Amino acid sequence: MTAYDDLMAQERDTQALAQVAGRLAWDQETMMPRGAAEQRAEESGAMQAVLHARRTDARRGDLLAEAESVATDEVARAQLHHIRRDYDRATLVPGDLAVAVARLTSRAQGQWAEARAADDYAAFAPVLAEVIRLKREEAAAVARGRDLYDALIDDFEPEMTAARLDAMFAEMRPRLVDLRARALDREWPVLDAHFDEQAQLRLSRELARNFGYDFARGRLDMAVHPFSSGSGDDVRITTRVSEHDPFNCLYSTIHETGHACYEQGIDPAYRLTPLGQGVSMGVHESQSRIYENQLGRSRAYTGWLFGRMREMFGDFGVADAGTFYRAVNRVHRGHIRTEADEVQYNLHIMLRFDLEKALIAGDLSTDDLEAAWNDRFEADFGYAVDRVSNGVLQDVHWSLGLFGYFPTYSLGNVYAGCLYRTMRGAVPDLEAQLARGETGEATAWLRTQVQRHGGRFAPAQVIARACGGEEPTAGPLLDYLDEKFGGM
Amino acid sequence: MTAYDDLMAQERDTQALAQVAGRLAWDQETMMPRGAAEQRAEESGAMQAVLHARRTDARRGDLLAEAESVATDEVARAQLHHIRRDYDRATLVPGDLAVAVARLTSRAQGQWAEARAADDYAAFAPVLAEVIRLKREEAAAVARGRDLYDALIDDFEPEMTAARLDAMFAEMRPRLVDLRARALDREWPVLDAHFDEQAQLRLSRELARNFGYDFARGRLDMAVHPFSSGSGDDVRITTRVSEHDPFNCLYSTIHETGHACYEQGIDPAYRLTPLGQGVSMGVHESQSRIYENQLGRSRAYTGWLFGRMREMFGDFGVADAGTFYRAVNRVHRGHIRTEADEVQYNLHIMLRFDLEKALIAGDLSTDDLEAAWNDRFEADFGYAVDRVSNGVLQDVHWSLGLFGYFPTYSLGNVYAGCLYRTMRGAVPDLEAQLARGETGEATAWLRTQVQRHGGRFAPAQVIARACGGEEPTAGPLLDYLDEKFGGM
Repeated sequence: MTAYDDLMAQERDTQALAQVAGRLAWDQETMMPRGAAEQRAEESGAMQAVLHARRTDARRGDLLAEAESVATDEVARAQLHHIRRDYDRATLVPGDLAVAVARLTSRAQGQWAEARAADDYAAFAPVLAEVIRLKREEAAAVARGRDLYDALIDDFEPEMTAARLDAMFAEMRPRLVDLRARALDREWPVLDAHFDEQAQLRLSRELARNFGYDFARGRLDMAVHPFSSGSGDDVRITTRVSEHDPFNCLYSTIHETGHACYEQGIDPAYRLTPLGQGVSMGVHESQSRIYENQLGRSRAYTGWLFGRMREMFGDFGVADAGTFYRAVNRVHRGHIRTEADEVQYNLHIMLRFDLEKALIAGDLSTDDLEAAWNDRFEADFGYAVDRVSNGVLQDVHWSLGLFGYFPTYSLGNVYAGCLYRTMRGAVPDLEAQLARGETGEATAWLRTQVQRHGGRFAPAQVIARACGGEEPTAGPLLDYLDEKFGGM
Repeated sequence: MTAYDDLMAQERDTQALAQVAGRLAWDQETMMPRGAAEQRAEESGAMQAVLHARRTDARRGDLLAEAESVATDEVARAQLHHIRRDYDRATLVPGDLAVAVARLTSRAQGQWAEARAADDYAAFAPVLAEVIRLKREEAAAVARGRDLYDALIDDFEPEMTAARLDAMFAEMRPRLVDLRARALDREWPVLDAHFDEQAQLRLSRELARNFGYDFARGRLDMAVHPFSSGSGDDVRITTRVSEHDPFNCLYSTIHETGHACYEQGIDPAYRLTPLGQGVSMGVHESQSRIYENQLGRSRAYTGWLFGRMREMFGDFGVADAGTFYRAVNRVHRGHIRTEADEVQYNLHIMLRFDLEKALIAGDLSTDDLEAAWNDRFEADFGYAVDRVSNGVLQDVHWSLGLFGYFPTYSLGNVYAGCLYRTMRGAVPDLEAQLARGETGEATAWLRTQVQRHGGRFAPAQVIARACGGEEPTAGPLLDYLDEKFGGM
C-alpha cells in the first residue's frame, strides 16, 4: 500500500465522519427536540474533537508529505492539494485558540439573538469585539505573510483576495446604484392572497424535482432558515412556508435545490474524498443563484409557474404572466439582505464587505460599527435604518466569526452571470424550454460543466473552464441585470 | 485531576459519540433516503471504528486500573464496574474477529431477509452456520471459564445464566401451557372496521404523553419495526400504523414509551456517563411490558381507552368495554412471536432459548434447525408451522448474531410481574386511576423505584430493591396471567 493509498483510506473515514457531523447539524435544525440542546452541544463537541484530532494527526502530515513527493496523477495531485490546505490550516491554528473560538462563537450567537430581539446593539458589541480579537489571532496564525482579511476569505473562497473583490465591487457599484434608482421609480405588484401551506410544500417538491433534485438521495424538510446539507448520496434540503408569501417557500426551495444538485452532481468517483464536495462558497452560491434567479425567476419560467400556480391555487389576484413575472422580481425599499431582489442584493454585500474588512484591519472599532453601518446604509440606499435589528444586527454571520463569508454571496452572483451567458449560447432553445417548465438541458449543462468536477479545479478555474476559458468578471451579471430590470 | 476524573471525562465524550451513533441508526430507520444506504454503511462503519478505538484504548485501561485502586464512593464504584465490563469485553475480543462479526452479520441480515421473502431456509443455513461459528469464537474469547452461551447472555443481561433461565422457564412452562389451552377454548372478539391512520397517530401521541413520555426531550416517528432510541435528553420513539388494526399502532407506542420513559427517567446526574442508560435488556423490557400490558391492557385502562376511541372513531362495531377488553387481549392460534398475546408469548421465547442454547453448545446443527423448530413448535402449540417464514425464519435476531437476547424478553415479563405485584400494594387506588386514563402515580412509582437508578444496580438487584428485597421469580407473573386470562 502506498502512502497515497494509506492517506486516502484515512481521509475516507474522516470524510464519512464529517458527513455524520453534518447530519447531526441537519438534525439539530429540523428534528431535534427542544429539550435536547444542552446534551446536543456535548455530542457535537465530541464529534468536532474527533474530527480535529484526525485533521491534525501527525501521521496524516507524514503520509501527506510522502504522497506529495511521488504523486503524479492530476486527480491525485488535486486530492493532495485539498488535504494540504486542510492540514496546514488545522495545524497552524493552536488547539487552544480553536477551542476558544468555538466556545466564544457559540456563546456569541446566543447573545446576538438576544440583542437582536431586544434591538440593543450595545449588548452585543463587547462579545463581537472579542470574536474579532480571536479571529484576528486565528488569521495571523494562518496568514503566512498575507493580510489578515485575505487569510479569512481564503477559508471560504480559496485564492480570492480583498483586492480582487475591491476591483469587482468597484465595477458593480455604479451600475447597480443607477439600475436600482431606475427600478425603484416604478411600481411593482405584490401578492395579496392566501396560499395553502400544504399545497405550497407539494409544489416545492415538484419544483425541486423539476430542477433535477434526486429525492432518492435526499429529502425536503422544514427549517427556520432554509439550508442544504450533506454530500454524495445523502444531500438534504429544507424550506419554510408562509401562507401569504408563496415565493418565500418556492424560491427558497429552488435556491437550496441548486446547492443540493451541485453536491448530488459531483462525479461519484469522488464520493467521500476531498474532491467530493463543492469547491468553494462562491461556486456553491453560483449554482443556487442561477437555479433561483437566472432560471427560476426568468420571464419564461415564471410564465410556466404562473400557470401551474393557477392550477393549484385558483385565481390569486394576479391578472397575467407579465404581472406575475414582475411580482416575482419585485424591487422594493427594504432593510434586510435576505429579502432583497437581484439588483439590491449586492449593495447589501458591499456594505458588509467594506465594514468587515475595516473591522479585521483594526480600522473600525465595534463601538463605532452601528453608526458606520447606518451611515453607509443611508448613503447607499437613500433612507435610514429604522431599528438595529433591521441594521447591523440583522445577520448571524459575525457572531459566528464568519468574516470573509459575505463576499462569496456576490461572487456567486458574478459566477452565475458568467455561466448564464455561456449557457444561453450552449442551449439556444433555453427560453422555449423554460416556458414549458423544462430545466433539464440547462441543469445538465451545469452538471457537466461545473457540478461534476467537485473540488477538482480551483473556484475561478472551474468557472473559467465552463465559460470558454474567460476569467470570471462582473460584466455578464451586470448586463443580465440591466437587460432584465432595465425595462421591466 | 485524579485518574477517575480523567477517565470520566473521556467516558463522557465516548458516551456522547455513542449517542451520535445511535441517532445515526435512528435516522437510518426513519429519515434516510433509500439511495443513501451504501454511503451510510461507510459512515456508520467509521463511527463504529472511532468508538471501538476509544473502548480499547490502552490509556483507558491504565486510568481504569488506577481509578479502581482508589475509588471508594459507591456511585464511582458502579461507574467503574460498567467501564471495566465494557473494557474487558472490548479488549478480549480480537480486533479481527470483531470486524469479521460486524461484516458477516451485516451480510447475513440481508440474506436472512431474502431467504424469508423466498420461504427458503436452505438459502440461509450456511451463513447462519458461519455466524454461529464466529459467535462461538467471540464467546470463547470473553468466557473466562463460563459456558459459551452464558458468556453471550451476559452481554444483554449481566449476571444471568442459562441455568437460572432453565429453572425459571421450568416453573413457567406447565402453567402457561395449561392457561393457553383454557384460553384457546374460548371465543375472542376481533376488530373489523376502518380506523383513520392520522387519527391513530394523534391518539398515539396522546397515549405516549399520557404515560409520561416527555416530547420536549423526544419525538415520535414512523418505522417499519417500532423501536426506542437514545438516552438522556434525546430519546426518540417510533410506531407503525395499520388502518384495520389500531392496537398495533397504539400498543407499539405504549411499549416504546415504556422503554423511552426508562431512559428519560434516569437521574440527570448520570447523563452521558456509564450509569446513564437502562441497566439491561431485561429491565428495559420490564418497563415496556408493564406499560404495555399490566397497565395498558388492563381492564381498567382499556375501559377508558374504549371511551376515548369511541370519541375519536365513532362506533367501530364493539358493543361495550368488556368486549373491547377481550379484543385487546385476544388469544389466538398464530405462528408469530411479535403478534402473540401475553400468555403465549413466553412459549415462543422458550422455544428459541432451548434451540439457541443447543446451537451455541454445538448440540444442534443448522442443517437440523428447521426440523427442530417445527417439531418443537408443534409440541408446544399443538399445530404445525405452515411455512418457514412463519417458523424459523420469522425473527431477525440470529442473523445479527444476537444469541442470548431472546430470553431477556421473558425476563422482562417476569420482572414486570414482580413490579406490578408490588405496585398494586404501593398504589392502592391504581384501578380507579387507570379507569380514568390516569397512569401518573403508577409511572411515578416506576420512575422512583426503577428508572431513576439507570445502571446503578445490577438487573436483578434493581428489581429486588423495588420489590421489598425479594429476588425476582416467575410466580407473580404467572399469578397475574392466571387471574387475568383464567376467567376472561
